Amino acid sequence: MLRKTRLFTPGPTPLLPAAQLAMAAADLHHRTPEFRAMFTRVSEGLKEFIGTKEDVIVLASSGTGAMEASVANLVNAGDAVAVITAGKFGERWVGICRAFGCNVRAIAAEYGKTISREALRDAITPELRAVFMQATESSTGVRHDVAAVAEMIAGSDTLLVVDAITGLGTTALDVDGKIDLLIGGSQKALMCPPGLSFCSVSERAWARMAECRQPRYYFDLRRERKVQAKGESAFTPAVALVAAMDAALTYVGKMGEGSVARGREALVENAERLAEITRAAVVAGGLELFAPESPAAAMTAVRAPAGVSATEIVKRLKAEFGGIVSDGQGEMKGSMFRIAHLGYFDYLDTLGLLGALEQVLVALAPGKFELGKMVGAAQRSLVSGRDSAPGVADEA
Amino acid sequence: MLRKTRLFTPGPTPLLPAAQLAMAAADLHHRTPEFRAMFTRVSEGLKEFIGTKEDVIVLASSGTGAMEASVANLVNAGDAVAVITAGKFGERWVGICRAFGCNVRAIAAEYGKTISREALRDAITPELRAVFMQATESSTGVRHDVAAVAEMIAGSDTLLVVDAITGLGTTALDVDGKIDLLIGGSQKALMCPPGLSFCSVSERAWARMAECRQPRYYFDLRRERKVQAKGESAFTPAVALVAAMDAALTYVGKMGEGSVARGREALVENAERLAEITRAAVVAGGLELFAPESPAAAMTAVRAPAGVSATEIVKRLKAEFGGIVSDGQGEMKGSMFRIAHLGYFDYLDTLGLLGALEQVLVALAPGKFELGKMVGAAQRSLVSGRDSAPGVADEA
Repeated sequence: MLRKTRLFTPGPTPLLPAAQLAMAAADLHHRTPEFRAMFTRVSEGLKEFIGTKEDVIVLASSGTGAMEASVANLVNAGDAVAVITAGKFGERWVGICRAFGCNVRAIAAEYGKTISREALRDAITPELRAVFMQATESSTGVRHDVAAVAEMIAGSDTLLVVDAITGLGTTALDVDGKIDLLIGGSQKALMCPPGLSFCSVSERAWARMAECRQPRYYFDLRRERKVQAKGESAFTPAVALVAAMDAALTYVGKMGEGSVARGREALVENAERLAEITRAAVVAGGLELFAPESPAAAMTAVRAPAGVSATEIVKRLKAEFGGIVSDGQGEMKGSMFRIAHLGYFDYLDTLGLLGALEQVLVALAPGKFELGKMVGAAQRSLVSGRDSAPGVADEA
Repeated sequence: MLRKTRLFTPGPTPLLPAAQLAMAAADLHHRTPEFRAMFTRVSEGLKEFIGTKEDVIVLASSGTGAMEASVANLVNAGDAVAVITAGKFGERWVGICRAFGCNVRAIAAEYGKTISREALRDAITPELRAVFMQATESSTGVRHDVAAVAEMIAGSDTLLVVDAITGLGTTALDVDGKIDLLIGGSQKALMCPPGLSFCSVSERAWARMAECRQPRYYFDLRRERKVQAKGESAFTPAVALVAAMDAALTYVGKMGEGSVARGREALVENAERLAEITRAAVVAGGLELFAPESPAAAMTAVRAPAGVSATEIVKRLKAEFGGIVSDGQGEMKGSMFRIAHLGYFDYLDTLGLLGALEQVLVALAPGKFELGKMVGAAQRSLVSGRDSAPGVADEA
């Protein structure tokens, strides 16, 4: 039989066909009215997608570039900063802050866990210049409590910087007045290829930049703000990716028409429902969640069963069924795998993958798994949740 | 009649159809054997395209990102550096070097000129840690003498860093042993959308990085070198643009089969011939070149005739004929315009644009121009040069 290759990785994610076509057709120059109109539409669309009234800056870089931009524009060498870290992307914040000479307080939890409110309260003190965190940590599938951190810094001079690269479009985020700089990327819930990052910036973060003495040029957010207000960017933008984002934002804007949850809320609900179904299925099938206490909706991280390597599961899913899921990163390699729900995924994608996973497990650990259990649990989860989350028809 | 929109701008340039399709189809994850094979092919293809045996690093950024990377990795705050500057992109080098605290010696010429050998010899002294320059300055259409500068720093500890973003694929460059860091971008002679930059790095530049104390993370070239040797990149690569480059490098590699000039040499010859034809045509038609003494082949910069605004020429070419040429940048706006030859341009494109230009000029300055003069001169230039530059059939 055919085996179509399907991405179930938490970024890059499956591309929206309309975005693919828009990208291929984007043979245009960036200093033209046509491009300025498109770029302005994308800026406005991103505000709506993020749920902010603040200015949103778009950068030609992957998400890590925007993470670096936030550090290079907001904090000085020697500044006390805190990083909430419980996985590979938290560790990336630590690495960037250290590269820029900050005095880093790591507020850490073990892989698969988030940090308790008590631990946060003890560690977040007013002398911190900024707190850096993920909304969801893609290496472990955990969701952090952004609202709790925002509440703890309220009234202080501490800035809150949130990497929401996998958080946007998968979890509700209350941005204005809470988060000073929030980062997203094109290749996640926005269904586009990687290569564009973006961030919303609060007024007090803009004000803070005047005090920042870190060298910066390509990632100088204040220069970009001036130019992007006119529909251009300081340096050549990634034109084709901007065109892809334009198509994707239009699609997301139309999601859920006629339902209660619309636009970005419908996209979040889609991920939340697929995650719920997936969790119900894998647990019913006899697997354990890697982050059971605070699971993200961007992806479901699953422990490999005893005696079976996650790497082998990943390989077989690809070889036998064309499904690309992610192995664990770093020390987690082999012991867990991740199934994505962020962006352009629907129930049939997810049900199919769960069925294939079940078949791989039956083959790898005979006697321990049973065909039909996972998919049956997924079916029942869909039925029981149907009222609260009506399906969204794809009108792309 | 139809008016097809056609880019004649010196970047972004017209997209190679095979690159557009490859990009649209690139729904793949970057931590897979398929992507590693593609990325390795692109790295090797870029070495061939640049003409180097050194490692080439690919970055998800526009060309300015790679310019910043060269400064952030090679020189410290307080270092004496020289910048050869005769236009907007030379000024960008000055801006980046100053942002990173360097002590900048500007070796300047007025717009439209290059720097004389004598002036270079006076200004390039052994205490300089690095010299930064463009191979061709896209804002004025001038070609700088990279080989002369390379000769002057030979035997010293001064590094030579060359922005060849519009130079690659339009001018012959002797890289190994001469240029320590050479920068290119996807959206120029490589016929792809903007968003990818790349650079070749000499062994002594790699060694110099150990002494560099500038903060850097996203643009840390040494980290990228380690990871890219394995066919990956440290951070999520711009997957779709890598796929586009893969297609474009394959196309360039096949150029000129059966001719003396092949591959990158055929691409350079294509630009040189189109530039020669264009120069012959505009001068025969009664216009003046903006950079007559050392014109680049990446584009031809033309002075607007007395009493006519270049901005009006640019507008009419677009409105009446769909041809997008570039107005002057900054202070040059209105007084000159630029017609590109770098990348996917052929004789029919160029002849058509020249004919349209002539018609616009006849309309804007009646009595001063005559239909048929420019296009006739272009035709004669093609015929007289034919033996030295056989046409290259498009087998894409």
